[in-house]
Amino acid sequence: MTATAASAKPLAVVILAAGKGTRMRSDTPKVLHEIAGLPIVGHAAKAPAALDPQKLVIVVGPGMEAIADSVPGAVAAVQHDRLGTAHAVLAAKDALSGFDGDLMILNGDVPLIRPETLAALRTSLSGGAAVAVLGFHCHDDHAYGRLILDADGQLDRIVEDKDATPEEKTSTLCNSNAIVLAGAHAWDILEAIDNDNAQGEYYLPDVVKVARARGLGCTHSEAPEDEVHGINSRVELARAEGLLQARLRRAAMENGATLIAPETVHFSHDTVLGRDVIVEPNVVFGPGVTVGDHVTIKGFSHLEGTQVRDGAVLGPYARLRPGTEIGVKAKIGNFVETKKAKIEDGAKVNHLSYIGDARVGTGANVGAGTITCNYDGYDKHFTDIGAGAFIGSNTSLVAPVTIGDGGYTGSGSVITKDVTGDALAVERSVQKEVPGWAARFRARKEEAKKKGA
Amino acid sequence: MTATAASAKPLAVVILAAGKGTRMRSDTPKVLHEIAGLPIVGHAAKAPAALDPQKLVIVVGPGMEAIADSVPGAVAAVQHDRLGTAHAVLAAKDALSGFDGDLMILNGDVPLIRPETLAALRTSLSGGAAVAVLGFHCHDDHAYGRLILDADGQLDRIVEDKDATPEEKTSTLCNSNAIVLAGAHAWDILEAIDNDNAQGEYYLPDVVKVARARGLGCTHSEAPEDEVHGINSRVELARAEGLLQARLRRAAMENGATLIAPETVHFSHDTVLGRDVIVEPNVVFGPGVTVGDHVTIKGFSHLEGTQVRDGAVLGPYARLRPGTEIGVKAKIGNFVETKKAKIEDGAKVNHLSYIGDARVGTGANVGAGTITCNYDGYDKHFTDIGAGAFIGSNTSLVAPVTIGDGGYTGSGSVITKDVTGDALAVERSVQKEVPGWAARFRARKEEAKKKGA
Amino acid sequence: MTATAASAKPLAVVILAAGKGTRMRSDTPKVLHEIAGLPIVGHAAKAPAALDPQKLVIVVGPGMEAIADSVPGAVAAVQHDRLGTAHAVLAAKDALSGFDGDLMILNGDVPLIRPETLAALRTSLSGGAAVAVLGFHCHDDHAYGRLILDADGQLDRIVEDKDATPEEKTSTLCNSNAIVLAGAHAWDILEAIDNDNAQGEYYLPDVVKVARARGLGCTHSEAPEDEVHGINSRVELARAEGLLQARLRRAAMENGATLIAPETVHFSHDTVLGRDVIVEPNVVFGPGVTVGDHVTIKGFSHLEGTQVRDGAVLGPYARLRPGTEIGVKAKIGNFVETKKAKIEDGAKVNHLSYIGDARVGTGANVGAGTITCNYDGYDKHFTDIGAGAFIGSNTSLVAPVTIGDGGYTGSGSVITKDVTGDALAVERSVQKEVPGWAARFRARKEEAKKKGA
Repeated sequence: MTATAASAKPLAVVILAAGKGTRMRSDTPKVLHEIAGLPIVGHAAKAPAALDPQKLVIVVGPGMEAIADSVPGAVAAVQHDRLGTAHAVLAAKDALSGFDGDLMILNGDVPLIRPETLAALRTSLSGGAAVAVLGFHCHDDHAYGRLILDADGQLDRIVEDKDATPEEKTSTLCNSNAIVLAGAHAWDILEAIDNDNAQGEYYLPDVVKVARARGLGCTHSEAPEDEVHGINSRVELARAEGLLQARLRRAAMENGATLIAPETVHFSHDTVLGRDVIVEPNVVFGPGVTVGDHVTIKGFSHLEGTQVRDGAVLGPYARLRPGTEIGVKAKIGNFVETKKAKIEDGAKVNHLSYIGDARVGTGANVGAGTITCNYDGYDKHFTDIGAGAFIGSNTSLVAPVTIGDGGYTGSGSVITKDVTGDALAVERSVQKEVPGWAARFRARKEEAKKKGA
Repeated sequence: MTATAASAKPLAVVILAAGKGTRMRSDTPKVLHEIAGLPIVGHAAKAPAALDPQKLVIVVGPGMEAIADSVPGAVAAVQHDRLGTAHAVLAAKDALSGFDGDLMILNGDVPLIRPETLAALRTSLSGGAAVAVLGFHCHDDHAYGRLILDADGQLDRIVEDKDATPEEKTSTLCNSNAIVLAGAHAWDILEAIDNDNAQGEYYLPDVVKVARARGLGCTHSEAPEDEVHGINSRVELARAEGLLQARLRRAAMENGATLIAPETVHFSHDTVLGRDVIVEPNVVFGPGVTVGDHVTIKGFSHLEGTQVRDGAVLGPYARLRPGTEIGVKAKIGNFVETKKAKIEDGAKVNHLSYIGDARVGTGANVGAGTITCNYDGYDKHFTDIGAGAFIGSNTSLVAPVTIGDGGYTGSGSVITKDVTGDALAVERSVQKEVPGWAARFRARKEEAKKKGA
Repeated sequence: MTATAASAKPLAVVILAAGKGTRMRSDTPKVLHEIAGLPIVGHAAKAPAALDPQKLVIVVGPGMEAIADSVPGAVAAVQHDRLGTAHAVLAAKDALSGFDGDLMILNGDVPLIRPETLAALRTSLSGGAAVAVLGFHCHDDHAYGRLILDADGQLDRIVEDKDATPEEKTSTLCNSNAIVLAGAHAWDILEAIDNDNAQGEYYLPDVVKVARARGLGCTHSEAPEDEVHGINSRVELARAEGLLQARLRRAAMENGATLIAPETVHFSHDTVLGRDVIVEPNVVFGPGVTVGDHVTIKGFSHLEGTQVRDGAVLGPYARLRPGTEIGVKAKIGNFVETKKAKIEDGAKVNHLSYIGDARVGTGANVGAGTITCNYDGYDKHFTDIGAGAFIGSNTSLVAPVTIGDGGYTGSGSVITKDVTGDALAVERSVQKEVPGWAARFRARKEEAKKKGA
């Protein structure tokens, strides 16, 4: 055994995701349920990605190859029979043929391990051990296997809860089943595991037994308990979501954003907030949102796939859908929906509007109740509103249509033809009045009510 | 005494609801305040309903008969003078004349007892005891009466906190005041209770003293502490609401729904969610909502009295009011309000619309800003949109009006007459342009600003 | 020393707010970040205001005078060099020239001290002591200075954490740095503090050392721990916000309002709710909201600068902006925005409307989709809707415009001229139908799709 730094060797990651997840009571494979907008297995794959692995293999059950498709760069390996976790890892062997670096084995249903935790696990191999197991301390009642250390603090064995002696049971150091095997021994050890147990299964924790029997060193590192929980039910899914949201909220605050009521702000895994951003209570960020500095996001706003530049003010009740770009100091008010919309610097869409497939030019003002009529039942069409334009309230903009720079539309107009810059366009009839009509109408209705009663 | 199963005898339930509830600081009787959309007393009556009682009597104060009206199948009995809890039970005697089964006495302000807890209480009588008291363990500082057991584990006596010896005070087993009396002895025992105490009141816990004095057996069962809290203030009301919501959320998740942020989803007591329903953060369910399988409900949605079929997608900001039916794979988007509206299979109402007293036919598409003008100040009128119709954005549909199957309305039209199937209907004037008007308008305004400054 | 009641003497308050607040990572001075809609320093100044101080001086860093501007009645004193907290207090001396009453010194970044806590601190001086220090018990790991009492329970000294002996460290009584100095000795003591320490700073806690050296008495009172936390980061800001919200929610409930899910209701520091107000989940109150009795506020509502009278019903999704007045039993429905709007008694604006710069007269009904077109790009204009008027759905009211009492507008009309009372006004073209157009349109589109594919 040499003491080469493990981190110098190439790394492959094998993620076990062949479990059925029956307790989810779902038609969707367990690991494709999402946390903060990313599938569970995507989280499991994201943490080791920071270690720059050369290969990423996801072991799935038959017919579940779609799981690997959800993770960029991953290759699926199918475990045809469910004969235990060590057997599952061996299913990845073909996909890794020719690779002789270290092997990191992770559970596809454990989404919250941090990259630094995996880095430390890997580093623990650098003393020359062949096996490194990620442990964690658990003080509750539980049925986890225990990591038993020898007098030197080396990992001696892993004992299943049901096989543990009373003394072993007092150990709080448990097995997370995240394991790194040194490349020189990885497949040898895995293939030496037998299924000589009650269930007749090949168990991954037996890597320790096999390695020790061959005189190879085993070691461990420790993870905070809340990183290693597996997800088996929707209640556990919600718990993991809550833990991750707490992390994301804290990170946003530490980065210089004010979350007035952090527990009511819901992030996606990839949300980026700038400095001096203020987020009011009750805001939901879907995937793909980036927000610049000095932006205020008022309550009840819902953003997805949107880029917001410095100084913008959004909401309350701003509903920004994918493809929205909000310019510097632009303003989106209440009950406003945007989609594939570029709202340029200083432009305002303040009330009750739908702006889809459109540009709103610099400094333009879109009045309350404006609708871009972008869809004809088959195709989407573009609305182009020039810089400094003023769209009167309740305007219907029937796309494709262009309002020139500085153009003006009269309230309530249906604009079907392009409007020249600096011109006024109006579509309107003559207002007529019928004197006394309302009084007569009420009298008639009151009369009818009386008769009906 | 024979050991006949108590559960074989008929059961009457008496709910005590004559308390004034001064600490609520409300003009509404305490037990009519709601939890998860049902009055407190409704919850108190719902749990024993699972035991199939023959009679349900609610004892109320003078002038508060409306309390019993809020509970289906309940009869009010008025306690004219407030002379204590045993006296209150006796007020129910007339209403139960001729009934000789067991008597279950419950507090109208204790809403969270589970049916199985009451079933166990009742079963505890099956050993032949005359009295069964529901106890609970309380470890906090408190002033509850203590259940004192004899050497055989039988209930020996109930000691009020103020009368308890230091030793008795160390007992954590407390009296919830939920009591079952075996029918053969019920009224005898109740009528033998005296008011020989400082307050001069007839106390229900004295059933134990009376029964033991007659050589009759007393027993108890135990409830989890969070089931037996009474509600005396709005803070306690909010606490009970929180406990019940936690139950409802967990049940929904165990049943196969994903609640991304369970603590932000608010259920009614009768909400039904199917399997693989996804509920985003911040959704409120009012009473009467049933949701099929594979439905997604996005954030900030508010549903009441609505039936949603499989595969529908709702919200964000969907406001579905009573009488709404959402068909299979139908879609309701943001800032859309429906009321008495049937949105048929595959139909879409995606943006900023009000659909009231209406049908939207299979596969129809309703454009942004569409309003059914259903009200004339006196009556509501119906809008019928045929299958496959396309309602252009910002259409006003002046009801009563029918759009035939496959009909199409031009954006911004006010539709006052029926539209033939497959026809296009437009109500619109000619768009006119005034070149340079906007530039002149701005110049004039800027000039005026300068003068004003 | 005489035992004159300290509270009889005039009081000046000095608030220290010269800290840089680097950990906030903000361009805004730390104490101007807001909690419940009021800057941190405003909270720090609000509690002592209940003691009726004659003077309020806020010590700020150079160029940060704006901090004092945010607090009504406060005077800024600039600390030019940051030489310690005692030095900071001396910066206030000029502003207090001629004043010889007691001096209360508070931290500008400690927002949650209750008035009664400060009253008790001040009263503790009434035994004749020269110095009173506000202590609190802290059981966590921390680095606070300890208050060490003598055998008589008098304050003997304050020991910094780093200088404390192991025995002193076991004391849980800590220094909050809120201090009152008796007027007769205040400046003498402060000026006698030296900077003979490692940092070379003048430390405020040294008032105790100086006073004792002169034979003057020192005393202390105690605050609940959660009142004295300082704010140094956005995480601590959020924590303080949460603590204050919990207080405000509890107070509202104790005052007779029902908060169905209190943890989802966000108050401002000045929100006033009446009795039997019901607040559904997810409601945000900005500054300046007063709500009468028996008002229901449904979910997802957002109120600022609004007065609501008895019996009104608001929301869900009511967005009431500053200058809104809601009359008795008036009703604001979903997706409705109001601004500078007087909605008179019994009036209704139920759906998808914008009412700005307007009056809606008693009993008037505003239909869905109504927009007051109040802005022309330069000026705001007024819309006056008379009592009993009926505004048809999707009406555009181009301000300035008046609808007389009982007036009626046709759905979808653009109203540019005043409407006489009891008259009907309509602006509308003739509805035209093109038979078969939709069928032909679809055929053409389907054809194109086929070709495109």
